[in-house]
Order: sequence, then C-alpha cells, then structure tokens
Amino acid sequence: MGLIKDNGVVYKSVNDVDLGPNTDQTYLHADVKAPRMAGLIAKVFVWFLEMKLIGNILLYFLKKNNRIQQLVSYGVMEDSPLYVPLHPYEDFEEEEVKSLSHGLSPAEQVQHAMDCLPFSDTKLQDSYFSFRRWKILDYSRAYASRHITPLVVAERLISAIEQSSGPGMDMSFFISYEARDILRQATESTLRYQRGEPISVLDGVPIAIKDEIDCMPYPTTGGSKWLHKLRPCKEDACCVKRLRSCGAILVGKTNMHELGAGTSGINPHYGTSRNPYNPKRISGGSSSGSAAVVCAGLCPVALGVDGGGSVRMPAALCGVVGFKPSFGRIPHSGVLPLNWTVGMVGVLAGTVEDSLIVYAAMSGQPEPHQSTMPRLKLPMLKHSNMSSIRLAKSDEWFNDCSDDIRACCLRALASLRKLYGWETVEVTIPDIEVMRLAHYVTIGSECTASIAHHLENKGRSESGWDVRVALSIYGSFDSRDYLNAQRIRNRQMKFHEKIFSMADVIVSPMVGVTAYEIKDDAQETGELDYVNGAALVRYSIAGNFLGLPAVTVPVGYDRLGLPIGIQFIGKPWSEAKLIQIAYAMEALCEAEYKKPQVFYDLLGEC
Amino acid sequence: MGLIKDNGVVYKSVNDVDLGPNTDQTYLHADVKAPRMAGLIAKVFVWFLEMKLIGNILLYFLKKNNRIQQLVSYGVMEDSPLYVPLHPYEDFEEEEVKSLSHGLSPAEQVQHAMDCLPFSDTKLQDSYFSFRRWKILDYSRAYASRHITPLVVAERLISAIEQSSGPGMDMSFFISYEARDILRQATESTLRYQRGEPISVLDGVPIAIKDEIDCMPYPTTGGSKWLHKLRPCKEDACCVKRLRSCGAILVGKTNMHELGAGTSGINPHYGTSRNPYNPKRISGGSSSGSAAVVCAGLCPVALGVDGGGSVRMPAALCGVVGFKPSFGRIPHSGVLPLNWTVGMVGVLAGTVEDSLIVYAAMSGQPEPHQSTMPRLKLPMLKHSNMSSIRLAKSDEWFNDCSDDIRACCLRALASLRKLYGWETVEVTIPDIEVMRLAHYVTIGSECTASIAHHLENKGRSESGWDVRVALSIYGSFDSRDYLNAQRIRNRQMKFHEKIFSMADVIVSPMVGVTAYEIKDDAQETGELDYVNGAALVRYSIAGNFLGLPAVTVPVGYDRLGLPIGIQFIGKPWSEAKLIQIAYAMEALCEAEYKKPQVFYDLLGEC
Repeated sequence: MGLIKDNGVVYKSVNDVDLGPNTDQTYLHADVKAPRMAGLIAKVFVWFLEMKLIGNILLYFLKKNNRIQQLVSYGVMEDSPLYVPLHPYEDFEEEEVKSLSHGLSPAEQVQHAMDCLPFSDTKLQDSYFSFRRWKILDYSRAYASRHITPLVVAERLISAIEQSSGPGMDMSFFISYEARDILRQATESTLRYQRGEPISVLDGVPIAIKDEIDCMPYPTTGGSKWLHKLRPCKEDACCVKRLRSCGAILVGKTNMHELGAGTSGINPHYGTSRNPYNPKRISGGSSSGSAAVVCAGLCPVALGVDGGGSVRMPAALCGVVGFKPSFGRIPHSGVLPLNWTVGMVGVLAGTVEDSLIVYAAMSGQPEPHQSTMPRLKLPMLKHSNMSSIRLAKSDEWFNDCSDDIRACCLRALASLRKLYGWETVEVTIPDIEVMRLAHYVTIGSECTASIAHHLENKGRSESGWDVRVALSIYGSFDSRDYLNAQRIRNRQMKFHEKIFSMADVIVSPMVGVTAYEIKDDAQETGELDYVNGAALVRYSIAGNFLGLPAVTVPVGYDRLGLPIGIQFIGKPWSEAKLIQIAYAMEALCEAEYKKPQVFYDLLGEC
Repeated sequence: MGLIKDNGVVYKSVNDVDLGPNTDQTYLHADVKAPRMAGLIAKVFVWFLEMKLIGNILLYFLKKNNRIQQLVSYGVMEDSPLYVPLHPYEDFEEEEVKSLSHGLSPAEQVQHAMDCLPFSDTKLQDSYFSFRRWKILDYSRAYASRHITPLVVAERLISAIEQSSGPGMDMSFFISYEARDILRQATESTLRYQRGEPISVLDGVPIAIKDEIDCMPYPTTGGSKWLHKLRPCKEDACCVKRLRSCGAILVGKTNMHELGAGTSGINPHYGTSRNPYNPKRISGGSSSGSAAVVCAGLCPVALGVDGGGSVRMPAALCGVVGFKPSFGRIPHSGVLPLNWTVGMVGVLAGTVEDSLIVYAAMSGQPEPHQSTMPRLKLPMLKHSNMSSIRLAKSDEWFNDCSDDIRACCLRALASLRKLYGWETVEVTIPDIEVMRLAHYVTIGSECTASIAHHLENKGRSESGWDVRVALSIYGSFDSRDYLNAQRIRNRQMKFHEKIFSMADVIVSPMVGVTAYEIKDDAQETGELDYVNGAALVRYSIAGNFLGLPAVTVPVGYDRLGLPIGIQFIGKPWSEAKLIQIAYAMEALCEAEYKKPQVFYDLLGEC
C-alpha cells in the first residue's frame, strides 16, 4: 500500500515493495462498518435498495469514500489487469511424484492414486481415526471382503439422512436426495462386487454433491428457489460423470448458502446446515452441507465449489479436509455459471488420502484442452523421509484470528518443525485486505453478469433477503471497479510469485473464527454479518483470485470443542506437493481428533 | 440476434446461427438517437453530466432501455467471456512466405523484408504513383546514390512543416516537433551514408509518430493538455526504439483526437488535422495527423495506434495504406495505456511495400515473451502467380455505406476477380452492430480504469467538451456491461473463426462515409457526432475487439474527389497473406491515384 491521494491509494511498484518480515507495508485489518442485519431490518433495507432510482442513489452514497473506492476503484498502480488466473504450464522437478500421461480414464487415474498410498494391511478398521470416520479404502475393503454390501450401506445412509433431517434434529444437510436412485446405484454396485468386478476403489462409496454442480436426476438449485426452474439440469457435470464412471454412489445434493453469496450457510429456503460438532452453530459456507455430511460420517467425500473459500471454510469449521486444486485442473462444465474466474470444484473429505483419490478421479481437462494443462501428478504418500519444506508465514496476517485458532496453528507449525525439521520463513504478503475487496468486486461483478437477466425475471423477489442485499451491492460495481480489481489480481500474482521463490508453500489459519451461533432472527430472512464474513474469508482469497491450489487440514479444537483448520497454499500446479504436506500435517494431529455430536457410523456394525 | 425479452435480447447458440447469405439473421443498422452537439449546447450538457449526484441520475436515465442495454448489458447468451483477444499460435502452411527466426535485430528483419520486394531497377523515381509520393526505397536510393542527403531532406521537411502549420494553412499536422532534434538525426544519418554505412533501408527516412506513443525528446500528450504533465515520457516506446535503431529520422509527434476518444480528429487544443485532399474536411481519427502527413508527402510512413479503427479510418479518409497487425504482434510498451485489449500500434504508409518494411522493423515481442508468439512471416511481394484467394463478403454490411463508396469497392472486387480470378464468398457476419456497442463499452471501460484517477485530479476540466461527454459515458458502464461485452467478444470470435473456415479474408469498405466538413462551432469545443462516428467505425471493430489483422488500401475517390479505401480482415497471425492481398489490390488501382491539394515533394528536385 501507499499514500492515499485524491481518495485513492497510490501503490508502489511491485519491485519496490519489501516482502521481508521488516517491511514498511502496514497490515490492514478488515474495517467493516456495516452492522449485522437480519429479520425486519434486512427487509426494510432491501425494500429501499430495490427501488429503482432511490436504490441507485442509495448505492451511490454507499459507494462514496468507502474502502473499496479508496483501495480498489480509485487505486493508482502501474500493473495491467489480469483477467483469468490461468497459469502457464510449468514442469518443475518434484520428488516422490508420479506423472500420469494424458488420456487415462478416471478409474485408471484412481488406480494410480492407489499405488501412491502407503502400504497397509488389508484388514477392515484400518482407519487411523480414534473415532473411526471411515475412509474410501475402508468401504472398498469391506465390500470386497463381503463384510457388508453397498446396498446395506445405502439403506443405512438413507435412514441416517431421514433421521438427521427429521424434526428435532433439522440438520438440513441435503436439498434433495432420492432413496430410489440411491438404492438403484447401490444395487448395481453390489452386483459388481458379487461378480468380483468392482470398477475401482470408489465403487459403492457414497459421495454427496453440492447443489451447485449438476448431478442427475436432481435439479441444480444453487440453494435458491428459482434458478433450477430457469436452468434445468440435463446431464451430470463432467466431474460427477467421472465419479459415476468409477462406480461411486451419488447420494444427493447438499445444502449451500443461496447462490454461494455468503459464508454462513444460513439458508432461509432449505434450512441451515448445522454443524455436527454443535448443531446450534453454522457449518460455514457456501458448501455447508458437503462439509457437514463428511463431518457427520454420512460420506467419506463430498464435492463443493470454492469461489471465495467456499470449500475450505466449511471444511475447517467442520473439522474435515478441504482441497481446492489450481484453476483449470478440474473441468468446470456442468457447474452453475455463477462466476468464471474464481470458482473451482473442490473436495471435502475425512482424510487427505481420500482427497487424493477423488482428486485423481476428477482431474484433467477433456479433449481438446487437455494438452494446455500440465500432466496430472500424484504424490507418493508416506510419513518417513519427508523432504524439507519451507513454509512462508506472514506474521500479522497469520495472527489476525481468535486466540485459540492462533495458538492451535502455531502448535501445529511447531510440531512440523520438531518432527520433520520444516522451517518457517517470515515474509510479508502485502495488501491481503485489498485483495479481499478486489475479489469481492470480481465475484460480485461476475455473479451479476451471470444471473442478472434471471433476477429481472422474478429471481430477485424469490431470493432470501440477505442475498437480495448482496445482489444489489454486486450490481453496483462499475467497470472501473472491475478492471482495477483485475490490476490488483496481477499485482498480487507477482507478489505471490516472489513469495514462492522464497518458500514452498504459504501457511495460515484457514479461518479467523470458529463456527458461530445460528441466531433465531436469521433463519427466515438470512443474515448479513460482514464482520464474521470477513473473518471467515480472510485466508481464502489467494486460492480463488489467483487460482492457487490450497488445502486445509484439521489440527485441533478451540475451548468450546469446535474444530480448527490450518491452510497451506501452493504455487500453481503444485497439488502433489501440497497433498504431501497436508498428509504429513494430518499425521501429526490424528491422535487429537474428537467425535462430532452428530455422527453416523455406516460400516460400524459390519 | 434473437428475441427481445425482459428488455434484453436472447441470443441463439453460435452453432445454431446460419452464416450463409440466406440467413434469418437481421442486419441491424446503427440507430444513433443522439443529436450532433458542439459549441454552447455541448458545454451545457457537460455541466449537467458532471454534477455529482445529478449527473449520476442523468446517466441512469440515459442508460435505460437504450440499445447498449438491450443488446449488450441485458443480452442473454451462453458464451463465456473472452477478456483478451490473444490468439493461440497457429503455424499454418503458407505459400511464398519467408519465416524468420526469433531474436533478429530490427535492421536484420528489415533486410529480410527487402528480400521480399519484387525486383526493380535501382534508378530513382521508380515509384509507381503517377503523382510521385516517394517511398522508403526512393529515399534510400537517393541517399545511397548521393542525389540528396538526409540533411537536405530534413531541411525541406522542416520548412514544409512550418509552412503547413502557419497561418492561412493551419493544417495542424503536428503537436510537437523540434527542428534541432530532426537536424541532429539527419546529420548523423548523412554521415553514415558518407561513410557508406547506412544501417538499413530506413536510414535517413523521415517517420512521424502519433502523439500517443512515447518518442524522445517529446512529451506524450495523447492530444490532451494535461496527460503529459502527469505521465512524463522517459524513453522511446519499444516500437520507436526499433525504428530509431534502423536509422529512421523521427520527425515529431502527430496530432490526434484527444485521448483517442473520437473519430473526427477535431482537436480543440492543437487544432484539427486537415485533410490534404480538401483542407476544409477532417482527416479522420484518432491518428489524424499521421494519416495527413503521409498523404501530404511529408513522410512515407507514420505510426498510429488503432483502438477502434484509429489507424485504418484516417488512412482511408486520406487515401493512404493503413495496416494493423494481430493483437500482440507489435510490442505495446511505451504506448499511452488508454486501454489494454483493443489498441494496437499500426502503420500508415503511402504504399503497401512501405507498410511491410516498417512492420518488419517493429515486429516481435521482446524477451521473455518472444516465444509465445508465432515467428514473424514476411510475404514475397509480386503481382504474377497470385494464388487464388476467397474473399468473404457480408452483403448488407458491405452495402451500409455511401453510394460512391459502395460502387468503388464493388469495382475493386470486380477487378480482383477479373485479373486474379479471386472469388467472393457471400456470407453473413451476424451482430456487427452488437459488436460495435460491445467494443464501445470495452474501450470506454478500459479508458476509465486507465485514466479516471487523473480525471479527478484536474484532467477532466482541462479536456475538450466532446471528450468530457465521452468520459462521462465511459464512466457510466457497470461491470455487468463490461462482462457481457466480453461474452459478445467470445461469440464474435467464434463467428469469425467459422467465416475464416469458408474464406481467406473478409472484405469490406473501410468507412461508411468519406471525409466530412469541419464545422465552425466544432473547433473550440470539439464535436459530438455519433451518426458520422458510427459510420466511420462501422467496418473497423473486428480488427480491435477480436485482435484480427486488417489493412486498408486506397481504391478510388468519390464524386468530390475524396479518397475511398477498401479493407481486408485476416485470420489471426495471417499478416503475410494480408499484405500480399493488399499489394495485389494496390497494383490494380495505381493508375487512379490523384494528388492531394496539399502536397510536398521532398525528393522532387534532386
């Protein structure tokens, strides 16, 4: 950052900014002046905002002299815009990594992932979690050894979903699921195991899909009451098709923050996905249901879409692994087109191992774009002989979270140093808050350009009140806001490139606060809580705005017993190394895992 | 185009649109409702527009239900945005083309261009123009054979500039030139010829530079009174540096439409570059001075920047060649950053041959971006044995110009068919008018994001009144307008790719009207004339918005004796073929050339 002049900040040249620990760059805390709004207040505010001319004038004044204007729209910098965070292919040398050739089938890629797992005997209950959250291999071995069939698991799953969504519990994990469709898939899988011909290790494994991704036979609501009516789902998204081709049982569409336009997961239409660790609290958003079902043991894996931390945030709040590969790594076709340059399909899983397997199943662009991407690389997972890793840590940013989160993440770093000898490199990543605002302008602008024509056509009036406020603000950005945000994208890309010349990954907490309470007035209208929202997305943005791969791993709990996640952000296309690091981190914390209050043990009695 | 629904047009899938001559696509004529404004009316309008809240409300109503809203902002289409018209490298087979390796010096590239010229004897006055507009080779041969020295030419040039800019003539060709700097360069060149060591065929050749491109020792005003004060020119632009390294004499900075924000070239600060064919008429814009100096014989070549036809339009109005290579072909560094994705350096020249030489001198990205571009290809110029060319012609678009222009361009096509057997392929290029509006949104948005911080800082009040209106409109586009414009860019790219599968080039007139009169009330305030503006840019947009190479060649005159140009638009990176085609076209029209009213013959008496 630089001086404020004529209402806008004049930024230094990237090359003149010191990225060392003793920089003159000041760390800017999120300065959110908007009060929390829900209930009647939110409705009145929307009423004014949506009046045509009055709303326009109101937004004019809201935009005046606020931080977005100072830091983004009126910011002065020499960088040209970077519109899409697509990284040139870089074929860097990597240890202990298996490079696959293009053109393999999903099941073949999964088989290669299996070859990357550490040797372990094949008896059931090999899962290293003290509370036994089953992983993909547990399912597959249980089926193969005929301890249980996919059909029995499916029946247990259906009754668990029914129980959890019934009165009294109201967990609101799913927006839609069809018992008949689940049982049909399970029957087919059971027959394959009976014939001794499972397609892959994913055969018969239940996987849930965020309701932002097309998956037959369900409508794709995006958490709304109207979008699926205007945009019918006609076939599986490419990533879903690949999982299906591996034999996975697609169990339904998980709940989410409406249109992905919020971070709490509070949804006035389909109920709020509750946190299995404490059902009075949020599971986070926008992939709220996907995080919650994995946490509650209903599926070892669920898919989410991460446009501003929407996979990683709820993963951290629910104590599961959240993994978002580089922009472009997983095909995006069949995902709701809510934006173009920041949203990416990601994996929520109970373990790093399962993230790897599902990542392998879904990766790679279909022809003819295949060769524009680097080949898929899969890491050999092991705990011994980890090569030395340098972790970049930007102090003030790292510390900008609750005391419990900070202490827990620092403890995790200390154990990495102690057990593996991994060193922390103190750096300064400048203008993180500026990047958050630029990303907000970008995702808001892209969302408006994507769905505004539906909004005029009754979508707006059928949306939740919090989303209506968001949509009004999204629609108020002008093209200068947008283009300057893209200049900031370029600037940040250069900063991050420099950081990656000093370290292998960036390390940070995943969120600034743990799961907070769902308030009564929020349930009907949704909730506007930009203070908590800013704390939740604080560490997410580089993954989306710069398209960098990032992963969160649970590393402990706060004093209320709510999960805490750490995050590693990698350089472009470095998924393999990132998974290795996450795997090493996970191993150090496995003894600490606690069982959620709401938990289903689908293989337990077999 | 498709149905209008909820205020926005619903567009068909690209693949469902028939691009044949009997399509159901309707051709949309420009429907410009804005009245011509100049003088006091323009001032009053600006006064309202620039009042903070009132201006905002006024723009709100101006934007309602206009064509941009219907066709761009509220348009519904499935295409995703294309932000930058950078084309993937395609190494197609070409006949009679010389491929150069990367890393040659500008002088070496010029030498290769020389090898592409047809054999001709070396005596002076070989120029095939009846009125003898000297070309680069004429200068170089005159110097080499000691008929004249660069210093004598420079002295004649300086007195010609002085005369033309003096009272009575007021041609306003230049914004700045320095006799001392010109003479210094000419002296150095003269010494090189005396030593028998000219650097290249460009040594001692006078070249003028549009005042949008950095060229020492001049400020870069962009036609404004203020931009150079805030952005000092510190070194030559990359393209200028290359010409200088070939020995060219850089003779000063040519006049232009202020900030490139108009097409007439009427400039209230530096006077209006007058058309040498008729000094009561415009030379066109925005590279008005560059077109006029070539037309008037002051330089065989001048540089311009083409953001919306700004090289090709004035070239056509002044009866010279205007050539704009593919986006990315010529380095952009050192050009005023008024936009990022539509503006490109182009060449204005008396002949196609000279365009080729200067194109060769400037082409290629500097390291490390060099290898992201295809190698430079230079065409062998000859009139015999021209391979067969298919010319795509979209009838209604082609015909949307004055009767004289239409008749003249059709005559040119007929002679191409007759002499070379080149066939015309009737096609329909859909939504040309939609593309014009989307381009307007794009260039306006990019201009705002580039200079708005200067505007708040007194730039606005020092700008011409017409430009102030343009800047207010530019600033009113929201991010949805911008992003939908980029979807249209993608759509048009796909349409054009399909057209290029049916034909080698697209052919059209260059402009819809010939040079119109400069009215008295326009001189002080500038002029808003969107009707003439739309007619001038009608055929330009694909070259900018899609980054396609394009060239205009003079092919005749209207009944008032004003020049008419034809245009060829090529597929990405097809500059070599485009130059061959232009060369063939030029040869057929050479007998027709008429001498401009204002003309200087710098080599004439040697």
